[in-house]
Amino acid sequence: MNERELIQRIDAMAGLNIDPALLCGIGDDCAVVRKTDELVLLYTMDTLIESVHFDLRWHPPELLGKKAVSVNVSDIAAMGGNPCYLLFSLGLPPDFDDQWALSLSKGVGRACEQYGCLLIGGDTVSSPAGITLTLTVIGEARAEQVLYRNGAQPGDSIYVSGPLGLAAAGLALCKGKMGREEEFKQLYEAHLDPHARVELGKCLARSGLVNSMMDLSDGLATDLAHICERSGLGARIRCEQLPCDPVLEKAAALLGQDSIDWMIGGGEDYELLFTASTSATERLQEVVANAGHVLYPVGRMVREQGIFLLAEDAGKRTATAIDYRGFDHFS
Amino acid sequence: MNERELIQRIDAMAGLNIDPALLCGIGDDCAVVRKTDELVLLYTMDTLIESVHFDLRWHPPELLGKKAVSVNVSDIAAMGGNPCYLLFSLGLPPDFDDQWALSLSKGVGRACEQYGCLLIGGDTVSSPAGITLTLTVIGEARAEQVLYRNGAQPGDSIYVSGPLGLAAAGLALCKGKMGREEEFKQLYEAHLDPHARVELGKCLARSGLVNSMMDLSDGLATDLAHICERSGLGARIRCEQLPCDPVLEKAAALLGQDSIDWMIGGGEDYELLFTASTSATERLQEVVANAGHVLYPVGRMVREQGIFLLAEDAGKRTATAIDYRGFDHFS
Repeated sequence: MNERELIQRIDAMAGLNIDPALLCGIGDDCAVVRKTDELVLLYTMDTLIESVHFDLRWHPPELLGKKAVSVNVSDIAAMGGNPCYLLFSLGLPPDFDDQWALSLSKGVGRACEQYGCLLIGGDTVSSPAGITLTLTVIGEARAEQVLYRNGAQPGDSIYVSGPLGLAAAGLALCKGKMGREEEFKQLYEAHLDPHARVELGKCLARSGLVNSMMDLSDGLATDLAHICERSGLGARIRCEQLPCDPVLEKAAALLGQDSIDWMIGGGEDYELLFTASTSATERLQEVVANAGHVLYPVGRMVREQGIFLLAEDAGKRTATAIDYRGFDHFS
Repeated sequence: MNERELIQRIDAMAGLNIDPALLCGIGDDCAVVRKTDELVLLYTMDTLIESVHFDLRWHPPELLGKKAVSVNVSDIAAMGGNPCYLLFSLGLPPDFDDQWALSLSKGVGRACEQYGCLLIGGDTVSSPAGITLTLTVIGEARAEQVLYRNGAQPGDSIYVSGPLGLAAAGLALCKGKMGREEEFKQLYEAHLDPHARVELGKCLARSGLVNSMMDLSDGLATDLAHICERSGLGARIRCEQLPCDPVLEKAAALLGQDSIDWMIGGGEDYELLFTASTSATERLQEVVANAGHVLYPVGRMVREQGIFLLAEDAGKRTATAIDYRGFDHFS
């Protein structure tokens, strides 16, 4: 059984949604629950496990604390919401280092300030086998503006809000113990200290131009597969449109890796992935630019199932299936 | 640094509560956030770690799933609230057993049904070093009825909603691999499959008779210390009033343990601990009886600091300090 199968089984057990206030349960970036006629509450929960999601050899505790908040807040951003409150559960070995734990907590606190949300509760437990962090972030949004994964339309352009693969390259550099820190600073930062696109998410939600949205946590291929599945559509990605930062190519050359693999399979970029009518491109460009970002079109939603990467190689066109090429948490 | 110190440091970092909607942050069973003029939302989060909070050798997966929900729902009950939604994060080793994971999930689902709350989201992650469960439960209550830890008054009677120490005895029996299952069924069940006192909590909240309340998760001594600290008072417990089930004495005799230690230091009973004016005893008895429980007075809140266990031994009166005799999660 892999992660998807287990989630499907758990989802099935969650039973029918008999609660009219529950607008969206399992299956999107957040659960969505009606708060008032106009507002909804957004709920998300993510766990980070030592040696799976972070490595203490290169992750400074303060940045780890910030990252734990950012990856959760990113789910709120992915629905177009505003993060309000945070619950934080910390599992520490009995012999934990005081200074380390305080730096981690400081990072959590700084990220809360940065995103304007308040730490309101949680738990501390002994975790002899390694550090665990679980966070729940509670957000809010206007009911009619929430962006779901299931709204993509055939013909929609597919967009991302920034260059791809940077976090995957940063992780590879950390693992490879590469030097030349300054040159690859952007890549290290993408892995160690990602930022949730809260303001951009809110601008996109307000614009009314976007049909579907999520955040890029598991890599373009895997995440786009969620939008396709929930919207009952397929997608075609154009290889030459993938936003590749020059520094990514440099790191790929240094490590003997393929930058395209990083861009479609690498997780943790925490950029926004969204679809909108092609006719809205110009207005969308303006919205994204006003929020301080660049709009990168990377492909098109289609009626035909499957996600294919379209490329031209020496005048020859190729189409490679890339569904779920990303991260299965149990594999 | 112990758990209390770490929580205090994290709490201090959470900053001033500048949000008027946040009625209670860290420091009670739940965080309390205003939803509407009349209603509040209750948030709680608890983590269970393999070999710390549960032992797979004797904990059947379905009961473990139920227990994970019950201990979180118990925090909602402790404020007098109604559990509505659940987020569930499950960390499993890569080679996890399918059937085990499904039984666990089934237990989570059954407990949700039992408490009338819906599973709306969560996370599944790889946790190579052992199973981890983190849950967030979201509850609701009428704003003016919520019961906090900080409302105890000098002279208040201290009550518990059921016999004490049963779960601690059950755990000791499991560890000791004792037989005679049928005789100690109640103790095993108290440890393996506790029940959150949701209906009783709501009845007590509605009654308007209770000044402070929490649930018994870490043992009477430790939990009462929280009420004392938050209310700026001390407490005196009368040893002869501690509600001791005959089966607890039997188990204590069998294992060579002290039943009083279990009753004041043993955690995980998940009964309610509350205080009310002594003049309300009769009305309170009726409320508790109507909810199908028995009201056990165990002592008195006093202005003098400290928690003392008062006993009479061969005509000699003794007073033993029992502050924080319970469970420190890092010790």
